Amino acid sequence: MILINSQLLKIAQDQVQEKINHRISIFKAINPQAKVVELNRGDVVRPLAKCVVEAMGVALNEASTEDITQGRAPIEGYQFLIDAIVKRDFKARRIKIDSSEVFINSGTKAELAALGDILCTDNRIAVTNPIYQTYIEANVIASRAGIMSDEGMWSHMIYMECTKETNFMPKMLTERPEVIYLCYPNDPTGCSMSRETLTEWVRYAIANEILIIFDATYEAFITDSSTPHSIYEIKGARRCAIELRSFSKSAGFTDLHCGYTVIPKELSGFSFSATKSGKLNELWRRRQEIKNYSPPYIVQRGAEALYTEQGQQSIRENVEYYMHNASLIRYALQNTRLNFWGGVDSPFIWVESPYESSWQLFDKLLNECNILSSPGERFGPGGKGYVRLSAFADQTKVTIASSRLSDLDI
Amino acid sequence: MILINSQLLKIAQDQVQEKINHRISIFKAINPQAKVVELNRGDVVRPLAKCVVEAMGVALNEASTEDITQGRAPIEGYQFLIDAIVKRDFKARRIKIDSSEVFINSGTKAELAALGDILCTDNRIAVTNPIYQTYIEANVIASRAGIMSDEGMWSHMIYMECTKETNFMPKMLTERPEVIYLCYPNDPTGCSMSRETLTEWVRYAIANEILIIFDATYEAFITDSSTPHSIYEIKGARRCAIELRSFSKSAGFTDLHCGYTVIPKELSGFSFSATKSGKLNELWRRRQEIKNYSPPYIVQRGAEALYTEQGQQSIRENVEYYMHNASLIRYALQNTRLNFWGGVDSPFIWVESPYESSWQLFDKLLNECNILSSPGERFGPGGKGYVRLSAFADQTKVTIASSRLSDLDI
Repeated sequence: MILINSQLLKIAQDQVQEKINHRISIFKAINPQAKVVELNRGDVVRPLAKCVVEAMGVALNEASTEDITQGRAPIEGYQFLIDAIVKRDFKARRIKIDSSEVFINSGTKAELAALGDILCTDNRIAVTNPIYQTYIEANVIASRAGIMSDEGMWSHMIYMECTKETNFMPKMLTERPEVIYLCYPNDPTGCSMSRETLTEWVRYAIANEILIIFDATYEAFITDSSTPHSIYEIKGARRCAIELRSFSKSAGFTDLHCGYTVIPKELSGFSFSATKSGKLNELWRRRQEIKNYSPPYIVQRGAEALYTEQGQQSIRENVEYYMHNASLIRYALQNTRLNFWGGVDSPFIWVESPYESSWQLFDKLLNECNILSSPGERFGPGGKGYVRLSAFADQTKVTIASSRLSDLDI
Repeated sequence: MILINSQLLKIAQDQVQEKINHRISIFKAINPQAKVVELNRGDVVRPLAKCVVEAMGVALNEASTEDITQGRAPIEGYQFLIDAIVKRDFKARRIKIDSSEVFINSGTKAELAALGDILCTDNRIAVTNPIYQTYIEANVIASRAGIMSDEGMWSHMIYMECTKETNFMPKMLTERPEVIYLCYPNDPTGCSMSRETLTEWVRYAIANEILIIFDATYEAFITDSSTPHSIYEIKGARRCAIELRSFSKSAGFTDLHCGYTVIPKELSGFSFSATKSGKLNELWRRRQEIKNYSPPYIVQRGAEALYTEQGQQSIRENVEYYMHNASLIRYALQNTRLNFWGGVDSPFIWVESPYESSWQLFDKLLNECNILSSPGERFGPGGKGYVRLSAFADQTKVTIASSRLSDLDI
């Protein structure tokens, strides 16, 4: 009989999601007429920008025309898109990134999981707690997480607690990992990391030869001018950090799956069994040759259009739309006695439950406001006692939900 | 310092490709005017079908329209595409596949590598020799291949030799693996597997509780009416086989990355450490939730269009175009003293080198016919002594190349 991955078996059930589904189905059975507003989404609702659709239409015509049809895209992505990225996202901010350091990817979730392929299973990984769970689950599949405790903590992962006492910034580590995942602006807490704090982490990583995998998916939502948009704004970060960016949320690309990964040439790792080191940039290129593709030509042409004036304008409009939603939710929350964080540099708002558990606030929001939230447990043990509200929703619905939320009696 | 995957390090250089590139660059330096015809491609040259482009255009407009824009595609793919697949590819051939057994994927290469995630590292994998190397390399990355010998054979892989003595059909195994990869019609040998032979393999797999991963990427190129198109045409295959299909080659989707994977509900595996079994279909669904997406809506709408009459017609035209190329090449080869196989149920033709090594035939084809071929070494040690010619090329160029090939003096 074939042997299955016993680690995957450990997380075969998504118990939190099952619990959520169970509660929703009970609610709907009792309240069949209720119009629930979903403020639990990571997925966007705004359509693709006109300039993106136009560029994709042109590319689609090329794909149907003899002589100019494209075959497979290059492993690292098309140069036209990489050049636009280097120019607008980095050079414009005086950050030196070479085009050979950029890889167009098919979305942050898949890429974060895939990056594990170039790393040895023995590396210890540090994660914030709470955290978007697929970060951890991908490491479980790769046999890198160890054994799960009754509290839902994995023995081989190192957890960096993020609590309200530290404004949800991770506590400095006492145990040394080889890899640290940082996601700022953060999902789920909605908090961004200041230049000073990020500088401390970069210094710590360099001093201890640690790799930081920096997930900057929500970078476009930063409104505070002092918040860094890229880890490479910090001196020395090229020596310790991989950065991931996404067009998913800011440009409505959740379905098109396109973003990019920056792997500076300075980064290398060591192999004891081979007693030699290897450059991560080169190892990643080879891994991609063997296991992956870059996104379709039409998608990369669509992404390129985001770097035109029209494209940048549409990103600004999208961000403003969702951040207006965030401010509606924040304004409503201010009318309640609830404590909350985020929603300034990020579309997510992290609300403290005034009750014993997150589930009680989740139920109250559902029953009294008909708002669907994400219980903190969705983001691991560190999420207990909180719920996440997301601004990725239709504005009319957010307006209705906010008005109900304002009247919530805690 | 972070630790890198020492297994990946072992295959960090693609030495065969480097050798090919070296020879090409020398040839071009000496013959700057020569017009080389590339018969070494796996990538297609024909544009997308009109009906596909139209369907994608409609989908693109939806994506730009408020109210009907799609968010992320479902993990398993859109039901409209799955239903079309079940109906046309299986029900029409009297094969019972349930829609819950079909997963839309992003291309065979990535999917084959990803499937390893649901399997334990300890499984022993049997592969044909020669074979498309990423099958093996993905297992090297997953630490499943062992140590490489001087001859390029991996200690933990089980090789099924495919030689001219057996018409390139794999020899039955003496050592029992847990997983067998079969790809028919085959890349690189171009041979298809008869119903009788495939039936033997299915019986062997059932009797020994082995999983067959059946790569049917070239299924559309079958012209012999007795050759099975799906492993599920064989009785009992639902109990032992996963099948992969692709729109890449038959419909020009190499850049769009869309195909599908069938995982019957009957398939399960065991975990000794958890002392329980798990259904592969469910484990795969969970793996996808954690690590992947299904292709964009517009791509899946494009694939759906392939199941209309127009779409089927365009696939027939594509296949005829490439198979006409194959027959031109075969006809030319018949004029030489070269032995060759394939090109009947497949776009690939496998040519025996009359010299000591494949490289001598590779060089002769390049220097005397200006034809770029793939030396058998690209497909592992079992490919030594052969070169692969591909019909994925422009017909005018194939005509020129064939005429030169006819005159080749061996």
